[in-house]
Formats: sequence, structure tokens, C-alpha cells
Amino acid sequence: MSTATSRPVCILGLGLIGGSLLRRLASTRGDVFGYNRSPVTVDAATADGYDASTDLAATLLRAAEADAVIVLATPVTALGPIVDAVARHAPDALMTDVVSVKEEVARIVAQRHPGARYVGGHPMAGTAYSGWDATDPSLFENAMWMVTTHDDTDADDWRAVSAIAREAGAFVVPAANDAHDRAAAAISHNPHLTAAVTAAVGAGESALSLRLAAGSFRDGTRVAGTAPDLQRAMLESNSVALLGTLSETIDRLVQARDRLRDHGDVAPLVEAGHRARLRYQEIAGTDPQPITDVRIGDDGWQAELRRQAHQARVWI
Amino acid sequence: MSTATSRPVCILGLGLIGGSLLRRLASTRGDVFGYNRSPVTVDAATADGYDASTDLAATLLRAAEADAVIVLATPVTALGPIVDAVARHAPDALMTDVVSVKEEVARIVAQRHPGARYVGGHPMAGTAYSGWDATDPSLFENAMWMVTTHDDTDADDWRAVSAIAREAGAFVVPAANDAHDRAAAAISHNPHLTAAVTAAVGAGESALSLRLAAGSFRDGTRVAGTAPDLQRAMLESNSVALLGTLSETIDRLVQARDRLRDHGDVAPLVEAGHRARLRYQEIAGTDPQPITDVRIGDDGWQAELRRQAHQARVWI
Repeated sequence: MSTATSRPVCILGLGLIGGSLLRRLASTRGDVFGYNRSPVTVDAATADGYDASTDLAATLLRAAEADAVIVLATPVTALGPIVDAVARHAPDALMTDVVSVKEEVARIVAQRHPGARYVGGHPMAGTAYSGWDATDPSLFENAMWMVTTHDDTDADDWRAVSAIAREAGAFVVPAANDAHDRAAAAISHNPHLTAAVTAAVGAGESALSLRLAAGSFRDGTRVAGTAPDLQRAMLESNSVALLGTLSETIDRLVQARDRLRDHGDVAPLVEAGHRARLRYQEIAGTDPQPITDVRIGDDGWQAELRRQAHQARVWI
Repeated sequence: MSTATSRPVCILGLGLIGGSLLRRLASTRGDVFGYNRSPVTVDAATADGYDASTDLAATLLRAAEADAVIVLATPVTALGPIVDAVARHAPDALMTDVVSVKEEVARIVAQRHPGARYVGGHPMAGTAYSGWDATDPSLFENAMWMVTTHDDTDADDWRAVSAIAREAGAFVVPAANDAHDRAAAAISHNPHLTAAVTAAVGAGESALSLRLAAGSFRDGTRVAGTAPDLQRAMLESNSVALLGTLSETIDRLVQARDRLRDHGDVAPLVEAGHRARLRYQEIAGTDPQPITDVRIGDDGWQAELRRQAHQARVWI
């Protein structure tokens, strides 16, 4: 087997995330190639000088031949047939993914390709835009990139997947799939629902309201501009965790409503929100602290990585 | 009486909004001066070359003498004693304000200074920062500036107040106080509560969550960073309208939660939010259409201005 950094990478799906990764890795690795179902996307990528094809079987046979790491980069709703094809044409290849929800992807992989070599991943990066035209090789710069880190995760496979994230410019956040999905519900999927409700309530009044809308509305509703299908694919595949955060959101708003009605103040919610925002700014505004004193492959390395990641540390 | 554009302006309160207005108007009018309770703020403004004082009575006597337009620019919670002082020292002066909630300000003015010449105003501009250091003379550039437009509003007074908004770089949005307050609840005050709950729920998990937080959380929680006292002053003085939008927010989220639980999808809320965001982008992304065929002072001018403002038109 070739070493982690020199291995080819095969990206299945060339939308915002997969396309941006193709463009980025093309400058750091010799052999990076991709597949997309749509000839329009493949033509655009090829015209821009990248190695792309609409032939899934041929792309996977090439990946198997080259011992490439396969990156699943389609929406979760399109993943089943793609994993079937990997099982058929490149059954021994190491797979990772860049799809939002990790438990759902792991379930699809286990069902369609039992015994697959698979280490999940999720770059916390995106824009409200989609498709090849929106791709950007610097999309992952300084982003957080979750890499599945379970007690049975293979050390070499983990290194190979983490190397891709690092080469893309991101920091590696090692986590268990369920912890990732709960966190994603809290800081990404729930914010999509609060943005949607903020937008819908704001526009419910007359055009006068939207005319008067300023920064708080503009920023608070930005992600509601994302294509509804992409939002639904992400949110609905994490429904269990999202039900929890959504219920907590409702409970807190009901408490705030009752307090405003009965006592005329909104202090508890506004103050809790302010404290939370300051904690976020503190974490986001400083360089991430590196995970220390762990050698990948040593006894218990996975648990120790996860432990430090829960303290907001990252693998560099 | 001097003409609208040449009249002096007296600004009471030199925080983010009042201070920014002082700095802006100092470059367009000869005589602009301000008052602030805090010597630190007055010293900073004076050091920057502006005309400011900590003596409220002297400032108001000067305003009365000069026939200045008085701009109330303190938080709504500090407004009562300020209006008392205007009633005592400059009872005939035209007053406007730049405070968020219009029905509450009108109530305070009517109670403390019956018979006052008063035309309310509200620039839809702000940042998460406050105080003199945060002031910016370009803060109002292309912002929307609501000016109270009731059936008994005096034409000359309306012109004088609107001239200040235009000189600050803003567009004038003529509206009734109650319509403004409902709109402000929908597009400004409610977004403060949804930002707060989004932040609080997001930070409720471990530090891992905030470590993974990306654009949707950053933008969706931005206004939760505003000082809690300023948020409370704004939101709690608009409690009736805010109770309405908050209840609608809760109802929509409960419907979304039930649908996610029973049918596994979030389509109705995500799609409603997306449509609302697109409508907002359409309005915010194009130059505002001017109100046409109205002469200020003609029969029914106030109603006609309001009618066109409800179609998202502005007075230029």
C-alpha cells in the first residue's frame, strides 16, 4: 500500500463540497479524479482542467486499481446506489465521506457494503450556494473537519482520511458518530430551523416589514436561502438528534413567552443567549489548541483523541 | 423659523446611534451639538472635535434659543427624565427620536410633555457594539429610517425630521407607529429571541459543539452578542407586538416538530423560510422604489405616504 499522502483520491459527487475538494487536492496530490452523474458538471470540471467522468463503474475500477481513497460526496439521499457500486467495483477500497450526518451514512454503508473499510468524515464548511460554479478550493481553510474515531477504527485508515482533511486546509476533530450528530443538530441543523421560522414570521407582515429589515434579519435568516432539498436531506437524516434540539428550542421559547407575558421581561433567554454567544466567540476567535500526547495506533488512542476533542482540541 | 436643512440639531444621548448621527450631521450642517450624561463620552466626543456637553439644562436652553430640532437618542428606559427636561427648558422645540419602539416613546412624550411638537423616527441600523467608540458617520448610509406619519402629523415638522434622515444618508419610510412596532417585532425583536435560543441550545452540548460550529451558527447567533441591557430595553418596550410574533414562532416550530416526529420531514417550515428569504433578498437587493405623486401638505398626504410605504416604497 502506498503512503497516506501519496495515495490517489477518488471523489464521487462534484457539488459544492466534492468539487471544492477536487480543486483543492489537485494542487497537493498528483492523482485526484472524480465522478458526477451530470454531464454538465463533468464538462465544467473538465473544461477547468480537472479529471472528471460521468462513468461511475469506470471511475471505481480505476480507484480500485490505483488503491485510491474514495470520498463519498453526494447528498445523503443519493448515497445508497453509490455505495452499491463501490461494493461491486472497488470492494477493498478505503472509503470516507463528506456528508453531513454520520450515523445515517454509517448505516447505509453497513447495509449496502458489509465489511467495507470506512472512516467517516464531515467538513464543517459550506455556503448558501451549490453546484460546480460555487466550488472554491479555499472552502476548507481553517474549517473543522470531523473524522470518525471509534474504538475499532483502524489507525492506518484514520491517518489516510485525516491526511485528506489536513491537505484541504482543515483541522481534524476526532469524534464518535453519535456525538457528532448531536453536535451537528445543535449547531447546524437546529439553526436552519430557527433561521427558517425567523424568515417566515418576518415576511408574514406586509412588504413594509421586509423593507425595514436590517442586519439582525439579514444575518439571522441567511441559511434559509440554502436550496430546500439540500436542507431537507441534511436535517431529515438527523431527525432523532434534531427532535431533541428542536424540543429544547420550543421549551425555552415557551418559557420566554410566559415570562414576557407575566412579568414583562425577557432577561433569562437574552442573558443565556448572550453567554452562549460569548463562549462561542471565545472558542472560534482563538487558534485551536492541538491534541497532545497521543500516538495514533497506541493502546486506547481513539478514546484519548475523543476525550481531548470534547475539550475543543483538534488534531493537527 | 429657519428652513429645514439649515436648522441646528441637538442630540440627547451620544451612544452608537446618537453619536454616529452627531458625527454625520457635523459634516452637513453648521450647528450640531449633543449632550451625554457620561463625562467619559463627552470628553471622547470633544477630543474628536465635536460639540458636546454633560449639562442637560444648558444644552436644552441653547436648543430653544437656536430653534434646533431635538433628537432623543437615549435608551427608552432613560427617556422619561430627558423628556421632562425638554418640557421645562425647550417646551416649543420640535422633537424627534431614534429609539426603537415608537408607541412606547409616543406614550412617554404624551405623558411627560403634553402638547409637544413631536414626530418620531427610527433608523434601522446598528451593530452588536455600543458606545462612542463604536460610532460611525456612515452607519445610516442606505439604511431605512422610519418617520412617524399619522393623519395629524404636521407637514413642516415631518419635512424637518425627514431632512435629518436624508442627510444622514438614509431613505425615509413613512409609517404609523403601531405598524412600525409590529414590523420591528417581526424583523428585529423576534430575531433577537431566535438568535438567543439558537445560541443557548447550541452551547448546551459540550465544547465539541461550539468547536464544530460554522457559518450557520456564527451568523444565526450574531445579534445575541449585543449587550443584554440594550436588547432588553428594545424588546421589553415592544412586549405586546413581540408576544404576537413570539407566539407565531412557537406555533410554527411546534408544527414542524410534530411533522418531523410523525412524518420524518421538515418540508413546510424549510420551504416557507426559503420563500421568505427570497422575498427579502428581492426587496433588499434592489434599489428602493421612490414614493411618487405626493406633495407633503396636500390633502391626505399622510395616508398616501403610508399606503405606498406598505408596498416597500420610500421617500427620497
